[in-house]
Amino acid sequence: MTQETKPATQAKRLYLNEVATRDGFQNEAAFIDTDDKIALIDELSACGYAKIEVTSFTSPKAIPALRDAEAVMHGIARAPGVVYTVLVPNVRGAERALSCNVGEVNLVMSVSESHNRANLRMTREQSFAQLSDVIEAVRGTGVAINVSLSTAMGCPMEGDVPTATVLEWMQRFAQRGVSGFTLCDTTGMAHPAQVRALCARASEAFAALELTLHFHNTRGMALANTLAALDAGIVRFDASLGGLGGCPYAPGATGNVCTEELVHMLELDGYDTGVNLAAVLEAAARLPALIGHDVPSQILKAGRRTDLHPLPAGAQDMPEQRAFL
Amino acid sequence: MTQETKPATQAKRLYLNEVATRDGFQNEAAFIDTDDKIALIDELSACGYAKIEVTSFTSPKAIPALRDAEAVMHGIARAPGVVYTVLVPNVRGAERALSCNVGEVNLVMSVSESHNRANLRMTREQSFAQLSDVIEAVRGTGVAINVSLSTAMGCPMEGDVPTATVLEWMQRFAQRGVSGFTLCDTTGMAHPAQVRALCARASEAFAALELTLHFHNTRGMALANTLAALDAGIVRFDASLGGLGGCPYAPGATGNVCTEELVHMLELDGYDTGVNLAAVLEAAARLPALIGHDVPSQILKAGRRTDLHPLPAGAQDMPEQRAFL
Repeated sequence: MTQETKPATQAKRLYLNEVATRDGFQNEAAFIDTDDKIALIDELSACGYAKIEVTSFTSPKAIPALRDAEAVMHGIARAPGVVYTVLVPNVRGAERALSCNVGEVNLVMSVSESHNRANLRMTREQSFAQLSDVIEAVRGTGVAINVSLSTAMGCPMEGDVPTATVLEWMQRFAQRGVSGFTLCDTTGMAHPAQVRALCARASEAFAALELTLHFHNTRGMALANTLAALDAGIVRFDASLGGLGGCPYAPGATGNVCTEELVHMLELDGYDTGVNLAAVLEAAARLPALIGHDVPSQILKAGRRTDLHPLPAGAQDMPEQRAFL
Repeated sequence: MTQETKPATQAKRLYLNEVATRDGFQNEAAFIDTDDKIALIDELSACGYAKIEVTSFTSPKAIPALRDAEAVMHGIARAPGVVYTVLVPNVRGAERALSCNVGEVNLVMSVSESHNRANLRMTREQSFAQLSDVIEAVRGTGVAINVSLSTAMGCPMEGDVPTATVLEWMQRFAQRGVSGFTLCDTTGMAHPAQVRALCARASEAFAALELTLHFHNTRGMALANTLAALDAGIVRFDASLGGLGGCPYAPGATGNVCTEELVHMLELDGYDTGVNLAAVLEAAARLPALIGHDVPSQILKAGRRTDLHPLPAGAQDMPEQRAFL
């Protein structure tokens, strides 16, 4: 935070959920060794996240990249205060997750019919029925239940999704007994005015439940949308180390909002994210070697705002002038 | 704009200045043919910009990429309502610009000493004296005079620049008689809380002058900073087609805020930018062929929010499920 914008009052506390090892790794073509996954998650556990989405208890056939879910969950060291959450698609996945002593299960469906069919091969009603069985299986175990609603800010096949539709699915899940929702901007269609309006409606309607926002930077708006969500009182955000996590409907486009870019902006703006930016940057810097390709993170290239640069050698003696604004 | 966020009142009018042909092209290693520059500027003239920064009347030795400044200015067709501005470093440049019937001259210096020396090979006092001579030469000709203050939101060599320093340089130029200022986030160090505070102070202190904001996306915050500037009442923004324009202190990092990404967000949020997004996207799509390399624009890859995608073939019949949030 710059000296002149430092607030007199205490910084507002935000809660970040790191999703790279689930939402990012599920997209990787080359399998990442179980030991490497465990080492990274252990490193992330020391970074100050409120929550880490460790892996996914999906069919190994559907997502072979995460076929080692049990081994990863058993291998990691749990840090106090960190919630370890996992994606669970069905009762079989929930049983596997519960046997690994997870802190939360994360259930997923899309609020638009076309995307749910494309992504999960089911109608929304089929998804709701299946996830209701999961809720039934998990309720009473002490494990938290979060529902992530994809395409909540627009569907790449159907376009706008009415706010009423989002609220209706939230209502149906709330009645089953869940602890929180994540509203997902699955393909980066959200824009700030929309985010502000939707977040205000959703947090008013479900004030007792945790509300998390999951942004993608597909069209460059992830940090602007974060500002809009903050305006509406949101304090929980998903983010992905290095910006990992692709978008199958926009080849070459950026995916999830990048953790280090999100933390960098929020800390400068005076928020307390709990996350140690330097530690996150160190972890992000090792990602390209781990996954075998470059990551979208711009902070990894440009450095932090406060990383100063020396005056180029001989600058004052050169006759030429350039004009960088 | 989505149906549910459409404001009942008239959209707020914003004024965009396209800087790609100056701020972008000056960085290009390969010379862009004069005819190609003219054709692009003529195309941009039909897009609805309030202003176009056409070229730079700098020494051809310093910026060979723009050595054809006179030919470009004489070759373009002027569209009514568009201000054609050019960068001018000294009285010689101003004379060349005035002979080409420009609508505005844009004067540049940094508010931090180290960056001014590195960028312009002068002390700030030397720059101020030289630019004061330019103002003297241009005042009374009917040509508008804008001063762009680089490193107004941070210096890559010195770090934070006190708001008092920015306001002091504005004051000194205001006393000489200028029509407007551009506050430049030269290396993408600005963050939203800082932008909000600086814009409020600057527009309060110089309410009679036009105030433009020039953001870079070096650390991913350009659109978030734009939101913050809008909050503070700013209505004028620089932007660069395709996101052209590098940052010499952050190799590989993104440069200027991308015009099509800025317009896309602002129009969705209900602002009237005057700019035809479809026309701008067409122009941006031809940039890679024109300059011989890819551009940072994410909208060019991902398409607009409203560009829908068909359901992938056979999606419903496939047994596998993925889980994209």
